[in-house]
Amino acid sequence: MAEDIDDSSFGLSNIRQNRRYQRVIPGELPGIEHVADAFVPPEENRIIISYIDYSESHIETGFVSNLAEFLAQPMPDWVTTRWFNISSPHPYVINQFRLHFGFHTLTAEDVMHIPQRPRVEFFDDYLFVVLRMLQFTPSEPHAPVAESVLEVEQVSLLLYDNVLISFQEKPDDIWKPIYDRLQAKNARIRKNGTGYLLYALLDAMVDHCFPVLEQYGDILEDLELTVLEKPTQTALHRIHAVKRELSLIRRIVWPIREVVDQLYREEENRMGENTKPYLRDVYEHTIQIVEIIESYREMVSGLTDLYMSAVSNRMNEIMKVLTIMSSVFIPLTFISGIYGMNFKYMPELDQRWAYPVIWVVFIVLTASMLFFFKRRGWLGNNE
Amino acid sequence: MAEDIDDSSFGLSNIRQNRRYQRVIPGELPGIEHVADAFVPPEENRIIISYIDYSESHIETGFVSNLAEFLAQPMPDWVTTRWFNISSPHPYVINQFRLHFGFHTLTAEDVMHIPQRPRVEFFDDYLFVVLRMLQFTPSEPHAPVAESVLEVEQVSLLLYDNVLISFQEKPDDIWKPIYDRLQAKNARIRKNGTGYLLYALLDAMVDHCFPVLEQYGDILEDLELTVLEKPTQTALHRIHAVKRELSLIRRIVWPIREVVDQLYREEENRMGENTKPYLRDVYEHTIQIVEIIESYREMVSGLTDLYMSAVSNRMNEIMKVLTIMSSVFIPLTFISGIYGMNFKYMPELDQRWAYPVIWVVFIVLTASMLFFFKRRGWLGNNE
Amino acid sequence: MAEDIDDSSFGLSNIRQNRRYQRVIPGELPGIEHVADAFVPPEENRIIISYIDYSESHIETGFVSNLAEFLAQPMPDWVTTRWFNISSPHPYVINQFRLHFGFHTLTAEDVMHIPQRPRVEFFDDYLFVVLRMLQFTPSEPHAPVAESVLEVEQVSLLLYDNVLISFQEKPDDIWKPIYDRLQAKNARIRKNGTGYLLYALLDAMVDHCFPVLEQYGDILEDLELTVLEKPTQTALHRIHAVKRELSLIRRIVWPIREVVDQLYREEENRMGENTKPYLRDVYEHTIQIVEIIESYREMVSGLTDLYMSAVSNRMNEIMKVLTIMSSVFIPLTFISGIYGMNFKYMPELDQRWAYPVIWVVFIVLTASMLFFFKRRGWLGNNE
Amino acid sequence: MAEDIDDSSFGLSNIRQNRRYQRVIPGELPGIEHVADAFVPPEENRIIISYIDYSESHIETGFVSNLAEFLAQPMPDWVTTRWFNISSPHPYVINQFRLHFGFHTLTAEDVMHIPQRPRVEFFDDYLFVVLRMLQFTPSEPHAPVAESVLEVEQVSLLLYDNVLISFQEKPDDIWKPIYDRLQAKNARIRKNGTGYLLYALLDAMVDHCFPVLEQYGDILEDLELTVLEKPTQTALHRIHAVKRELSLIRRIVWPIREVVDQLYREEENRMGENTKPYLRDVYEHTIQIVEIIESYREMVSGLTDLYMSAVSNRMNEIMKVLTIMSSVFIPLTFISGIYGMNFKYMPELDQRWAYPVIWVVFIVLTASMLFFFKRRGWLGNNE
Amino acid sequence: MAEDIDDSSFGLSNIRQNRRYQRVIPGELPGIEHVADAFVPPEENRIIISYIDYSESHIETGFVSNLAEFLAQPMPDWVTTRWFNISSPHPYVINQFRLHFGFHTLTAEDVMHIPQRPRVEFFDDYLFVVLRMLQFTPSEPHAPVAESVLEVEQVSLLLYDNVLISFQEKPDDIWKPIYDRLQAKNARIRKNGTGYLLYALLDAMVDHCFPVLEQYGDILEDLELTVLEKPTQTALHRIHAVKRELSLIRRIVWPIREVVDQLYREEENRMGENTKPYLRDVYEHTIQIVEIIESYREMVSGLTDLYMSAVSNRMNEIMKVLTIMSSVFIPLTFISGIYGMNFKYMPELDQRWAYPVIWVVFIVLTASMLFFFKRRGWLGNNE
Repeated sequence: MAEDIDDSSFGLSNIRQNRRYQRVIPGELPGIEHVADAFVPPEENRIIISYIDYSESHIETGFVSNLAEFLAQPMPDWVTTRWFNISSPHPYVINQFRLHFGFHTLTAEDVMHIPQRPRVEFFDDYLFVVLRMLQFTPSEPHAPVAESVLEVEQVSLLLYDNVLISFQEKPDDIWKPIYDRLQAKNARIRKNGTGYLLYALLDAMVDHCFPVLEQYGDILEDLELTVLEKPTQTALHRIHAVKRELSLIRRIVWPIREVVDQLYREEENRMGENTKPYLRDVYEHTIQIVEIIESYREMVSGLTDLYMSAVSNRMNEIMKVLTIMSSVFIPLTFISGIYGMNFKYMPELDQRWAYPVIWVVFIVLTASMLFFFKRRGWLGNNE
Repeated sequence: MAEDIDDSSFGLSNIRQNRRYQRVIPGELPGIEHVADAFVPPEENRIIISYIDYSESHIETGFVSNLAEFLAQPMPDWVTTRWFNISSPHPYVINQFRLHFGFHTLTAEDVMHIPQRPRVEFFDDYLFVVLRMLQFTPSEPHAPVAESVLEVEQVSLLLYDNVLISFQEKPDDIWKPIYDRLQAKNARIRKNGTGYLLYALLDAMVDHCFPVLEQYGDILEDLELTVLEKPTQTALHRIHAVKRELSLIRRIVWPIREVVDQLYREEENRMGENTKPYLRDVYEHTIQIVEIIESYREMVSGLTDLYMSAVSNRMNEIMKVLTIMSSVFIPLTFISGIYGMNFKYMPELDQRWAYPVIWVVFIVLTASMLFFFKRRGWLGNNE
Repeated sequence: MAEDIDDSSFGLSNIRQNRRYQRVIPGELPGIEHVADAFVPPEENRIIISYIDYSESHIETGFVSNLAEFLAQPMPDWVTTRWFNISSPHPYVINQFRLHFGFHTLTAEDVMHIPQRPRVEFFDDYLFVVLRMLQFTPSEPHAPVAESVLEVEQVSLLLYDNVLISFQEKPDDIWKPIYDRLQAKNARIRKNGTGYLLYALLDAMVDHCFPVLEQYGDILEDLELTVLEKPTQTALHRIHAVKRELSLIRRIVWPIREVVDQLYREEENRMGENTKPYLRDVYEHTIQIVEIIESYREMVSGLTDLYMSAVSNRMNEIMKVLTIMSSVFIPLTFISGIYGMNFKYMPELDQRWAYPVIWVVFIVLTASMLFFFKRRGWLGNNE
Repeated sequence: MAEDIDDSSFGLSNIRQNRRYQRVIPGELPGIEHVADAFVPPEENRIIISYIDYSESHIETGFVSNLAEFLAQPMPDWVTTRWFNISSPHPYVINQFRLHFGFHTLTAEDVMHIPQRPRVEFFDDYLFVVLRMLQFTPSEPHAPVAESVLEVEQVSLLLYDNVLISFQEKPDDIWKPIYDRLQAKNARIRKNGTGYLLYALLDAMVDHCFPVLEQYGDILEDLELTVLEKPTQTALHRIHAVKRELSLIRRIVWPIREVVDQLYREEENRMGENTKPYLRDVYEHTIQIVEIIESYREMVSGLTDLYMSAVSNRMNEIMKVLTIMSSVFIPLTFISGIYGMNFKYMPELDQRWAYPVIWVVFIVLTASMLFFFKRRGWLGNNE
Repeated sequence: MAEDIDDSSFGLSNIRQNRRYQRVIPGELPGIEHVADAFVPPEENRIIISYIDYSESHIETGFVSNLAEFLAQPMPDWVTTRWFNISSPHPYVINQFRLHFGFHTLTAEDVMHIPQRPRVEFFDDYLFVVLRMLQFTPSEPHAPVAESVLEVEQVSLLLYDNVLISFQEKPDDIWKPIYDRLQAKNARIRKNGTGYLLYALLDAMVDHCFPVLEQYGDILEDLELTVLEKPTQTALHRIHAVKRELSLIRRIVWPIREVVDQLYREEENRMGENTKPYLRDVYEHTIQIVEIIESYREMVSGLTDLYMSAVSNRMNEIMKVLTIMSSVFIPLTFISGIYGMNFKYMPELDQRWAYPVIWVVFIVLTASMLFFFKRRGWLGNNE
């Protein structure tokens, strides 16, 4: 039986990632066969299966309503690349594809299970790529940008000679720009093979990281200002949260770099020779992303140091006020206490000049104290 | 003579790992031959030796009561894989198996000695794998979950062409799901060879880590809340303990990754070609586990920082209260002290308006002090 | 449509780096073809295209006004190397060069996009090198040196057999020394081929780092003095800024090292055999630069430690003053308070000797307190 | 002339390592020839040279009194392995062996010089292994265990085809267990060749680390308890010392790992094929030792953090007491000061109810202060 | 025109390293040809050129007064190795050698430029080694040892088949021990070739590090004592300085390791086969030096921690004194204040027993306070 837990990653306020169909009992059977759902068509049909057939000159798109029937038909001759895209896939659908295309039961399990570590696996007749995409989406339809949530979406790609199957975790419209490019008749994407289509999807997914990182750049800039001006506890907690979010993002992005590198270096040339320079380009982008994340992480740890030293400085300020007040008034109080004593024989008490003189003493003492503190630089600001 | 020390790993409150039959005197003879126990059958018979013979079509299970007799009989022809499982093995039994199957005396010693670093060793006619498994078990039969103890159990596996021998440290039922899967007639595990059985055991052991890590995730979440809300010394000690427990878990899990990798890459194909994709799957899981541990370790060190800054902030709060109280009342006390002096000639003392005026001075001074602190932001909260 | 954002790198006060023509929408078409600007000649003509033709014996320099016409003419026979230099390149010009020299559309995109990570790419018929150069320039024409700004300028180089094309981001005169060296008739640069010219440009760019680092050396020395003498918040913020600037510089310089190494090791000998020792020399320089940066980074983190300990020491000083003042005067105040009590039957009050004795007590108490603090070393300085 | 300095490693209280016969003047002649001692027999004869000749069936042991004479005699035919063991070797003896066995002058120097970094060197006709052994020995014959000293002893081994020469720094009895094993007629050590003997010595030396590490485990446990309960300065200094001792031990053990690995991988099979699995076993032990040291180092740095936070917490406690006392009594003192003023016209002074009311005010104020601190949680303990 | 700046490395108090003839303008011509000094003989003749011709049986030493003439003469037949040593070389002399021996213009530049990163460069007909040597020299002729300065001296070596040319930066007598060894007729150095001479120089330079490190060992021991006993700001600044000095030394020594390794591994056997074991010996020494530096760096960072915790402890001490004084006397002062009030109707004031009772109250309160602090352990020492 399938569990469909939809929980946010633990403790992180702003990141939402799902967990689905994970094996629970240690020693359980691996593969998709043991999942009951894999053999029963789902009742509610939220799954959308679209297909695009194209060659350099033709293109045809549509939705698959009856999967079994559609797969039974042979692919038209003119088609150089057929691309299936399945959103929010159900084990049943994954299993149907597996039975038709004959991919490994573990591949089917990996498509089904969320989350997976991004990676590429080379099989005899197909390539399996699983990636995780980052995207800021508003927490509610009309929520302000500040409350947007970082969603992690898993995408699995299977590359056959002239078929590409992509499974996306959520029913959103992430491939829109690719669809648009495919429409153009002389588009480079139509001329090159299935490998180039895979590259285009990879590229789109990697490029999704840039706006996310820009938002983090803004957040860090805000935090830096806050820490420099008014270091509150909340700011520290925010720094702590950002640190963990960046740590998660790094864990998501880091293996993508390796995926692209392995695709670039694979020797059987399944991606197509023309696609190589483009893969190198994607590789450059992942390196850039990783470097930005690293520099953000450095910044975060620098912010923690700044915060701590700001707290120390504030303590210094507080102590200086306390010390100045005490050092000025405690001796004065003592002097006034002396002449508050009730001894019978205190000659000063009876003098006319005594009271004015004591005021002079008060003023001289205060002035010399303040001068002492001034010289120590405790009166000016600590800037 | 055998020592059977059962001590918990030092200082860690929640982890229990045994130490047994370790060589004590430097320069002592290596191997099992020097252990007296290896040649004397144990009196109390706590050792359970089970066997499972199976082929694609048949399966037969049982317990071995007389080991020498059982080993003397030839293996039935129909059997494709025979699996011995020995729980809480005694040197005598290990030695009996060694004499029959002819494995190296150092292998026998490694099976006997606890703890071992997880690793794989390739011999001419067999493969030796030693792993350590993690499991939360209640400290007493009906103890609440919170008091459960993390137990470390050592498992040794010897893979021959069609025989697998597994030695488990404790007499618990860790292979139950595997037994169940073996019962199913057309099960994949029955079709594939002994290598696949080894994989299934590895997989089960690796999967045991996930619930353990989930529990640590919960613990860390709790600790984070505690530190953010009420940072006590106890919380810090708990953080310290978790840090060390994670460090130990990492030392246990990290080499497993290498074990699986070496099995995946071994060139003589002892595991069977079909098993390769499954090993890659286990490898993925170990990578995931290692990554989770790393992110937990990062969290722990983040928590320490949070704790320290919370302590600093609390100090700031305390100092602010002290400074405000002192700065407000010390000058006032001084003024009251002035008019407590007993000078004869203090003109103010005789004025009717003097006492009300001094109250006005008190109030104005207090107000201006509070205004000063307000402007410095010392009166509001530090959030 | 082209965006031409000219923003300084975020948060860093002193570093200015541009961003131009970056792809914005994930999934957008890669390459230069999708950029509308690439096909429309720019209206305002800020682009300067210069060329230098030279052989061992002749040299001819000039500016290209009509690019299409110029490219259409064949290169004179006597020319062994032709060098195009284009400043602040417009997509249209880049595209024209691409159409003539047939370099890859992604190379064209990389020339156009700013910033790029420094790297070298080997194509069948050409080599593509992209680097980033550091230069301190006054923030305004006649601004004092202290307000100078660290500018990052991107330079792209394309090496063909006997043609070198260099694209520089800004219209400044960075190649002046190279021009001068080319004028000399028997100059080594005229005798060696196009590869040596590429080396000369690389060398000039790498050498630009040294004055920049020297300036940072001065800044660090100043900061060290400040921290040792008067550790202000501003100094800490400056340290924090320098840390981030060094971090950025490292990210710019580090990959240059690899670029030079790859050029040194490339096997097809496109750089020319004679150029090899010179490349090794540049490599040495990049290593030196990286080492200097690392030692500066170490210094910065040492400065942070120094700052924090200076703050702690200052706190100690403050506390010592407070403690001495309080410990001396609070007991005295108490004693004076005793004899300020209004009890009827206090025998001391009526004694003639009481008041002098109380003064003796005051003085003895103060002296013993000061002696106590003296012995603890609280009265001397903390040097 | 020989210098024979016997100084303990600097600053470490508990570790004793010697330094002997180190070259002092830069540019001095390398090798043993320049050492005057190498050619003059020592007067006082503290050097003990023992030999063991053995084959599978025979064994003969003895002490060499006249070295030159002994070496001149041919080795009996039945001897498969001859083992010389020299304790506290004198340059003269080393040189005699060098002249007979023809090992390199630098090898002789390395045997003579103490300390050496553990390593293995392969020469054409012999193998040179130098190791350093750790051992806790009581500081004086009957001193309590707590005052035992960690001694570092250097052992040099030369492996020829059927001769093994071992030089041990001190005249202690470290090979006792090996001697015992050699006596047994059918012992594995007698059947295998000289390589196995070398392994047995290595194994004994490596195993000497385990009791040392166990003692450090106990020390760390004690320190942890101390820090948690009563963090004194002394504890911090002890932590600091242990950190440095562990650092030294790591420097001694780390290269041993490499020595064993190189012996395991050496291709000319000088150690004997049968010895390989045993070397792998030693390798496992060194890995375990290194891992234990690493975990101890982690613990030590965790203890430093714990100590620092305990100090901060204690400061918090102190500040809380000060703040509570001051905040409660300073306002009360002010109020009492008001009515200690000597103004003529203070209507309250003459009222009968005034004094009781002022007491009520005192009590209410104190109670509300305490309530305020209670709510802040300052009155309870900080556990 | 040559610049001859002689500045100490920035900010480091105790290290003196020169900078000379560095290229200043980015894009300047590489090599020695552009240096005007290279073609004009220097006026003041501070340069000393010595030569040593030797074979196994003969040796001849002298000084070169007229370089051109000397180089023009053929080398005598009996000479197996000729060694030129040039101190404080002038570009003109370097250029003369270059023109005669035909080494690369970049090599000449590297000899001239100071400082260089230590490295080895292999050319077709010669080997170029540049190293930096460390040496403590008194700051003035008769200055005390404590004020000695660490001088860094650059040495360049060119190895031809039977000629070795060494350029030393300063006119000191660093090769004295080598000269002495060369005089001995049957010296090993005379028997082996030019490669062995190069080794001997390397060895002498590496061995110069040991006394330097020993001095740092002493400095660190002193600092440790200071920090443990009386942690002053000056000690912290000294720690900070030592940290940076060690960092510089590491940057100088680290690449020497690689130089020696490359010489050991070079395949063309230019150093001579017999020299190999000696190079391995030098390599061992560099490893030892690097390890000592690393352990010193660890110690320095441990000292910083110790210092910070000592400062915290001192703060604790101060706060405890303040808190004890305040907590004891503030309540007493309050009580005395109560009975200093001037209310008419205070029944206690008129009682005979009141004054003695108040003294009892004072004493009891003080005692109970002290008991409270005693129990908290604030009265004892913090050891």
